Amino acid sequence: MGLNFPIKRPQRQKVINKANLGMDFEAIINESNEYYLNNDIAVIHKKPTPVQIVKVDYPMRSKAVITEAYYKTPSTTDYNGLYRGKYIDFEAKENHNKTAFPLANIHPHQIMHLKNIIKHGGIGFMIFYWAPYNECYILTFDRVEKYWDESFEGGRKSIPYEEFLKNGHLVKEGYAPRLPYLKVIDEIYFNNK
Amino acid sequence: MGLNFPIKRPQRQKVINKANLGMDFEAIINESNEYYLNNDIAVIHKKPTPVQIVKVDYPMRSKAVITEAYYKTPSTTDYNGLYRGKYIDFEAKENHNKTAFPLANIHPHQIMHLKNIIKHGGIGFMIFYWAPYNECYILTFDRVEKYWDESFEGGRKSIPYEEFLKNGHLVKEGYAPRLPYLKVIDEIYFNNK
Repeated sequence: MGLNFPIKRPQRQKVINKANLGMDFEAIINESNEYYLNNDIAVIHKKPTPVQIVKVDYPMRSKAVITEAYYKTPSTTDYNGLYRGKYIDFEAKENHNKTAFPLANIHPHQIMHLKNIIKHGGIGFMIFYWAPYNECYILTFDRVEKYWDESFEGGRKSIPYEEFLKNGHLVKEGYAPRLPYLKVIDEIYFNNK
Repeated sequence: MGLNFPIKRPQRQKVINKANLGMDFEAIINESNEYYLNNDIAVIHKKPTPVQIVKVDYPMRSKAVITEAYYKTPSTTDYNGLYRGKYIDFEAKENHNKTAFPLANIHPHQIMHLKNIIKHGGIGFMIFYWAPYNECYILTFDRVEKYWDESFEGGRKSIPYEEFLKNGHLVKEGYAPRLPYLKVIDEIYFNNK
């Protein structure tokens, strides 16, 4: 049921840590988006990491070098684009916990942004990679929002794995693209099976 | 007919150069998008400048400092978002030439991206600030594409000012927002006058 990409990894790299897995989940999404773009299926891009540029040097005869910059907190989600004539927007998260996804890993501005997207008629969701189970799930924004809102009213501070099993949408691994998440989007938002 | 923002500028700053005007046009668009967001009219954001990060330092007790990075060529346009349930995508350009906008100021990947957006049912255009006339125009993508394509078939390498007067859509200055370009989008794409 899961994705087999981590199985291939030990050949290149022995130590698997969070950062690496994170890079890979992102890389797999990007690769899938490239496939969708090249095959005229969707136009979805990852937004660049926002950086506050403080100092730029212009060495002679070579291009500008940024010599001082800082990471900024993004004001939106990681991905957006256009699919079947609709605006689509999502955030990708990985989880290394076995029982629940901590809500602390979601930024308030990401919730606010997705709330706005839904309000204005776009498709908004989150895609989660559960590293311990090697599974990938889509949760529609209303499910994420439910847990988010309840956490401020004395509710739990995480989304349990059971929620993913019950209300999540499993994205099975594919060959081309490797993460065929738009197939699942078809089922959820376009009533296509 | 034009925009009056540069009139206010000399108080703060005597020398008006290209870079400053550029910053201001972008700032005015961003400010207008903020207005649209805060007033629940549209969700449109500028994408961060893509940067290739090469070296990051982690000084003790302070946040990560990027100490070597380079500007990357963007693979898409500057702005995208959601308006009246539709995906919207555009590139902002300023022109300091009096007679024509040189096509060399448009990157091929921007044309390719907007072509894809139109193909997939999105709204795609370019917004131009003509500094010599202090005027702002929207050109729908089909007009830009016409000149772009013709330039490869022996045609002129620029879009003449007359094209803007004839087929462009003037964006008049406003108070809130300062650049009410969505009013013009209503007229072009939603048949609202």
